[in-house]
Amino acid sequence: MIQNDVADVKGLSSLQRAIQKFTRIRRTTERICEPLETEDYVPQPVVDVSPPKWHLSHTTWFFETFILAQHLPGYRPFHPRFGHLFNSYYNAAGDRVSRDQRGFMTRPTVREVMAYRRHVDEHVLGLEAHLPGEVLETVLSLLEIGCQHEQQHQELLVTDVKYILSCNVLRPVYHQPVLPRSEPVAARYLPVAEGIHPIGFTGDGFCFDNELAPHRVFLDSFAVRNTLVTNGEYLEFMQAGGYSDFRHWLSEGWATVNAEGWRAPLYWEEEDGQWFEWTLAGRRAVDLLAPVTHVSFFEAAAFAAWAGKRLLTEFEWETAARQFNPSASSRNSLDSWLLHPLPAAREPGTECGQLLGETWQWTNSAYLPYPGFRVAEGALGEYNGKFMMNQMVLRGSSCATPADHSRPTYRNFFPASARWQFTGIRLGS
Amino acid sequence: MIQNDVADVKGLSSLQRAIQKFTRIRRTTERICEPLETEDYVPQPVVDVSPPKWHLSHTTWFFETFILAQHLPGYRPFHPRFGHLFNSYYNAAGDRVSRDQRGFMTRPTVREVMAYRRHVDEHVLGLEAHLPGEVLETVLSLLEIGCQHEQQHQELLVTDVKYILSCNVLRPVYHQPVLPRSEPVAARYLPVAEGIHPIGFTGDGFCFDNELAPHRVFLDSFAVRNTLVTNGEYLEFMQAGGYSDFRHWLSEGWATVNAEGWRAPLYWEEEDGQWFEWTLAGRRAVDLLAPVTHVSFFEAAAFAAWAGKRLLTEFEWETAARQFNPSASSRNSLDSWLLHPLPAAREPGTECGQLLGETWQWTNSAYLPYPGFRVAEGALGEYNGKFMMNQMVLRGSSCATPADHSRPTYRNFFPASARWQFTGIRLGS
Amino acid sequence: MIQNDVADVKGLSSLQRAIQKFTRIRRTTERICEPLETEDYVPQPVVDVSPPKWHLSHTTWFFETFILAQHLPGYRPFHPRFGHLFNSYYNAAGDRVSRDQRGFMTRPTVREVMAYRRHVDEHVLGLEAHLPGEVLETVLSLLEIGCQHEQQHQELLVTDVKYILSCNVLRPVYHQPVLPRSEPVAARYLPVAEGIHPIGFTGDGFCFDNELAPHRVFLDSFAVRNTLVTNGEYLEFMQAGGYSDFRHWLSEGWATVNAEGWRAPLYWEEEDGQWFEWTLAGRRAVDLLAPVTHVSFFEAAAFAAWAGKRLLTEFEWETAARQFNPSASSRNSLDSWLLHPLPAAREPGTECGQLLGETWQWTNSAYLPYPGFRVAEGALGEYNGKFMMNQMVLRGSSCATPADHSRPTYRNFFPASARWQFTGIRLGS
Amino acid sequence: MIQNDVADVKGLSSLQRAIQKFTRIRRTTERICEPLETEDYVPQPVVDVSPPKWHLSHTTWFFETFILAQHLPGYRPFHPRFGHLFNSYYNAAGDRVSRDQRGFMTRPTVREVMAYRRHVDEHVLGLEAHLPGEVLETVLSLLEIGCQHEQQHQELLVTDVKYILSCNVLRPVYHQPVLPRSEPVAARYLPVAEGIHPIGFTGDGFCFDNELAPHRVFLDSFAVRNTLVTNGEYLEFMQAGGYSDFRHWLSEGWATVNAEGWRAPLYWEEEDGQWFEWTLAGRRAVDLLAPVTHVSFFEAAAFAAWAGKRLLTEFEWETAARQFNPSASSRNSLDSWLLHPLPAAREPGTECGQLLGETWQWTNSAYLPYPGFRVAEGALGEYNGKFMMNQMVLRGSSCATPADHSRPTYRNFFPASARWQFTGIRLGS
Repeated sequence: MIQNDVADVKGLSSLQRAIQKFTRIRRTTERICEPLETEDYVPQPVVDVSPPKWHLSHTTWFFETFILAQHLPGYRPFHPRFGHLFNSYYNAAGDRVSRDQRGFMTRPTVREVMAYRRHVDEHVLGLEAHLPGEVLETVLSLLEIGCQHEQQHQELLVTDVKYILSCNVLRPVYHQPVLPRSEPVAARYLPVAEGIHPIGFTGDGFCFDNELAPHRVFLDSFAVRNTLVTNGEYLEFMQAGGYSDFRHWLSEGWATVNAEGWRAPLYWEEEDGQWFEWTLAGRRAVDLLAPVTHVSFFEAAAFAAWAGKRLLTEFEWETAARQFNPSASSRNSLDSWLLHPLPAAREPGTECGQLLGETWQWTNSAYLPYPGFRVAEGALGEYNGKFMMNQMVLRGSSCATPADHSRPTYRNFFPASARWQFTGIRLGS
Repeated sequence: MIQNDVADVKGLSSLQRAIQKFTRIRRTTERICEPLETEDYVPQPVVDVSPPKWHLSHTTWFFETFILAQHLPGYRPFHPRFGHLFNSYYNAAGDRVSRDQRGFMTRPTVREVMAYRRHVDEHVLGLEAHLPGEVLETVLSLLEIGCQHEQQHQELLVTDVKYILSCNVLRPVYHQPVLPRSEPVAARYLPVAEGIHPIGFTGDGFCFDNELAPHRVFLDSFAVRNTLVTNGEYLEFMQAGGYSDFRHWLSEGWATVNAEGWRAPLYWEEEDGQWFEWTLAGRRAVDLLAPVTHVSFFEAAAFAAWAGKRLLTEFEWETAARQFNPSASSRNSLDSWLLHPLPAAREPGTECGQLLGETWQWTNSAYLPYPGFRVAEGALGEYNGKFMMNQMVLRGSSCATPADHSRPTYRNFFPASARWQFTGIRLGS
Repeated sequence: MIQNDVADVKGLSSLQRAIQKFTRIRRTTERICEPLETEDYVPQPVVDVSPPKWHLSHTTWFFETFILAQHLPGYRPFHPRFGHLFNSYYNAAGDRVSRDQRGFMTRPTVREVMAYRRHVDEHVLGLEAHLPGEVLETVLSLLEIGCQHEQQHQELLVTDVKYILSCNVLRPVYHQPVLPRSEPVAARYLPVAEGIHPIGFTGDGFCFDNELAPHRVFLDSFAVRNTLVTNGEYLEFMQAGGYSDFRHWLSEGWATVNAEGWRAPLYWEEEDGQWFEWTLAGRRAVDLLAPVTHVSFFEAAAFAAWAGKRLLTEFEWETAARQFNPSASSRNSLDSWLLHPLPAAREPGTECGQLLGETWQWTNSAYLPYPGFRVAEGALGEYNGKFMMNQMVLRGSSCATPADHSRPTYRNFFPASARWQFTGIRLGS
Repeated sequence: MIQNDVADVKGLSSLQRAIQKFTRIRRTTERICEPLETEDYVPQPVVDVSPPKWHLSHTTWFFETFILAQHLPGYRPFHPRFGHLFNSYYNAAGDRVSRDQRGFMTRPTVREVMAYRRHVDEHVLGLEAHLPGEVLETVLSLLEIGCQHEQQHQELLVTDVKYILSCNVLRPVYHQPVLPRSEPVAARYLPVAEGIHPIGFTGDGFCFDNELAPHRVFLDSFAVRNTLVTNGEYLEFMQAGGYSDFRHWLSEGWATVNAEGWRAPLYWEEEDGQWFEWTLAGRRAVDLLAPVTHVSFFEAAAFAAWAGKRLLTEFEWETAARQFNPSASSRNSLDSWLLHPLPAAREPGTECGQLLGETWQWTNSAYLPYPGFRVAEGALGEYNGKFMMNQMVLRGSSCATPADHSRPTYRNFFPASARWQFTGIRLGS
């Protein structure tokens, strides 16, 4: 039915290429789950952490609701209630299960969820034969958004699995990779000159609405450190009493430290004077040369204050990233992986290392709309804009980010107290 | 090794008989779980409702901790951390997992839990060959307590499974029995004369410590209704505005009604003016002749006040039960079953029907020690006495009570707001 | 207008006598407040503790609502909104302010509240001239209830004032009485024989509905200690690790100890190894011979368990009190007073001492209706019955109870965790 | 003792001038309290609202702690515990009372607080005679900060008094001013050109640390509305279903609307289809031409979304304010006052009106440090920086702001849900 689609050099139409990408991404999600027991798919130990079963279903629901149900002629939903069950936050897409109840949905079972995925996957494959030509562009765009959305959930899936496994007294191991040793790299501060700089996404590929519209900012000259803060440096902060001196902390951070009893990053535990951390490979002695991770914004800011430095703004980060060419930066990714602690700076030749693929980097920028930001029409308009409140921006990407899901303009965001993501610290001055 | 054990007419020693009973009860627990999916074993949707996986393990832990670990020479625990994981409330038995975290323990898996059960079961079977003779009496007594304990958990397992399944929007059905029709029985009030009456367990079989010591109470003359309150009668209360008139309610009951938004028993829902209830067999129209169940003490007391009657005390209930011979009462049980709504009074010839096997019956007695009550030594001393606060006594038994686990002196107890058990109403005056 | 009222030997009619009593009690309430600053009348530091301003108003509202507004021809309420403001829990008497908001009502001011009291007092005095004869009996009964109600609030006023003053870092002193020294009395257990005993109020004077109907109970023989537990004995329990050994505690008590961080009675504080207590006379060293007070039921029960004794039931207490003639018991009262710590057993000749006038004595009886208890018609029916849930009965009276407001059948009641009343421990066995 | 202080044209030294200002500001604080009853000084109905007694004491404590105790030779604190009682949030200045306990401190009394004020005032007057010359500059600076601090509390005092009085069912009136009528002004959008603009305080007078360091921003061209949004416009939003359409709201705003049941600004109430608002002058019909106030950031942002406009950033606001000369803007202030609803735009000739003196104006900027911001040394370093998290910036000033306490660079900040300040809406595009 599609006449107007253009073949590429391999003879593939744009829809065929999109479906190939779709298939690859869908398989990756399932591969992340392979080490899990059925029981691991069920619980929601804290409200931030969704059951793996839910991630598997919700990403599928996205393709069913926004593509198949609207654009594939004659499509019948896999199950009449799944729309209700797996809607996350799209008020415009109808009723939904309260977010804190996700861990009580024992049905559909994992087996049924996998059948749901196959059902939707097959119908997406069927688009090639059955899609009306006039919606091709719309569907290509929705397929891309759906793939990006699923990649976002891949990272959440990894961090949620880590959290769920950590709740078990039995401390099950997720996988057992061979680990490169971290190598020490000398920390330096690289200067960036004062000026008007471009911010935001331009170019051809995909970006989220929150990276638009491109615009200019004026920045004073600043400096960016070439490496992330290491576990060893963070331990110095701890040993210097960092967690018990209010002067380093934001008021709300200090209240959180005391209410939660924080005295180390999430997953760290002390035994006989030595520090260990819980990783996807089980408990390991803390690697002092690896980048510190699982720290909140509050901890990142307190560390910076203690160190006499500061966090960069997201505009400074993006400007530095453009200047120091992150594509040459050492890279891990979900696809190369899957383990923390991570090797530090494996390519010490890079000028400004670890921009991508190690840990997300807290910036001292609140998550707010760019000048000229416009909310999309319809349910997809709820994607980003409505969360622009009481969250801090993170830049870069982490070891759990899919390889083709990071770029210098990407804006990640979490509340200042969040620690269960792979979040770390880059200093500036 | 055991010399002093006495054979019965079938040539079985008392230990052999105890192990036969043990085996039968263990199998029943597992049979209750047969209709479940693996995922259903995991969650704890409210703190009162434990995961089926937890019931399966905790009952097993009881046998391992109090019998095998202490009395079977050379016994090695199945897993070094299970003692920590499956201790429920025995402070004397060591550290334990916080009660509200049970739904986050994905490991051990159901498969591992079943292996744990088999391991313990096999070693209990091995007691016959390996038990030192001098601990026979102790072990016989502990086996009996362990079996009674597991039977208590069987009833909880049924009610927890019902609750867990009800949390699913998909409303899965547990089983599909053929249901006898309820028949109407005329309600009458049977007189019991003033006097000094015996209370508490005497005789040879097992009883819990809270049924001891036997003693006497003086009772004024009173009357007991021959049938339980039916759904139809309860519906009249509802339609007369029972849930919106504070005058029928205890102060704390009225606060609960408003805080929880109660306007019908748990699991009831109205659709187009008709009332349905969620049962283990799925959603059914309310059977007006069946006994009302899933009502709290607050609702039972409010109903009684509205009806111009009252609830019996536990002493009146026990005295009436002795007088009206409950063994001739119509009987359901976990073993005959497993369904609600239940048929009402199938043997209308009985003088005072439905004493056992339909619903637990709220009494207007607080759960307090009998005169002369003594707490047992050691960890088992924590079994009952320490819960004697802010709970009301229920008498009788329900459709989910194992057949040999009910007797007229049995004291069940729950907070006045509990509704997820099969709890109903018997009136007195 | 009243023709049928009978004069006594002093020539006073029954209404004149009732009004004399009313006047005396109203003045006592105000005398309790004399040491307060205006600011002390305002706050509600915990929900149990009402502002003094509220006690002054609410007791006045009772007379206005149930007597003046209904029976004094032409009476106009002092203020149209006070009915709403000062209704406590009488749903039948109309709308009311949420209980936890009482501390935010800065208006009416203390001055206005006192004017309200005078207004109502004057109109009550005017009853003599203006009351229609046919309601005399009704009004006499309501005056008596109103006076008893105000006396109940006098005791609450004292304990609430103590709590409010204790919240001040500046620790203001309420009064400075001269204290008799406590004298040691040898503890003995006095036997009471098995039998059927009468329970409940009979005779001519006033009693609350919860003391009715009189009835019989059968009691096994028991023994009652002749003295209350002293601070010195309680300190032994503390020093023996009483607060850190779960075995002495009810499950809910143990949870409360840990949640609240209890390690001594309310108002006790340790300094350099010595224990002090905050009293209405300021901070004092704990008097080891005085009865312990400000302990919860949980602490009373734990102490008894540790001591190898038990608490009496309310039926045992009442039977012992009848047998040992409490009127000969040493007596303090609100009228003789106003201080804690209190002198112990000043009349050691008494057989069973300290039954009244020292501390309320926790019993191991839940607060439940007597057989034959009937709720009164109308709003006053809400007085007692609806609170018969999750409260424990206390018997006796305390140093803050008005002299003519205690009797052996009196049933006081509080939740098992309450500590801000003058509550202590009498042991039995 | 001071030799080096310079006299002005009136012959006053800089210290004399500072003390004159101090005296004037201290009197204003007390004048704000004149209409209050003693009881009104006590409560803290929500944690944000401090007792007037606390404001009076805390501002005094500031002068005592940072000036008298440190720089006046031989100064003895008025009371040894007041340092503890009236420290608000300066961890560096020692221990303090938990913020949510302020309403339970009945002592010191209002009278004692006033004596405390007089004591401190007299010693500040005494500085002239006794201050060592070498600390003159330090003390001048601290006096200025203390005065600015007290002026901030004056505005809080007004809004807290309004809230406290509103909690009274009796609805007491604070004052009864004669009100000018609001006049309609045509709304226009005034253009501001693209460019690099200066931000932050420069010049001679006082500013807070958060207004420093001055720096540059690049702004695209934008437009600013010449008037604030009126009650009438906001009512249109309400009547168009603004509070029930999630599409206008931030996710957290929508959750707040539903959790709090918001359907109008704070203090508005509907009666028979007409809207009234509670003001310091009592209940009034809503003035449709006056600026809407007591709206949260969430409501401001939802209104803007509904209107197809947006809120300005704080940088746009400041740039517009510079361009349109706010000193010519119509002005109310705490000093001219004290009432809401306020007359709108009394000087319609002004180009961009109501920048100051009507309502604070929510901006779409998070409260974050300026580039180059440095935290001060010592306890005063806790003044602003540590609150730079999860708060939104407000610009302008309100009718409750002291006349000399507003300027175009002033950065006020509150959480996005705060409504009890005089906060309103200015639109941009």
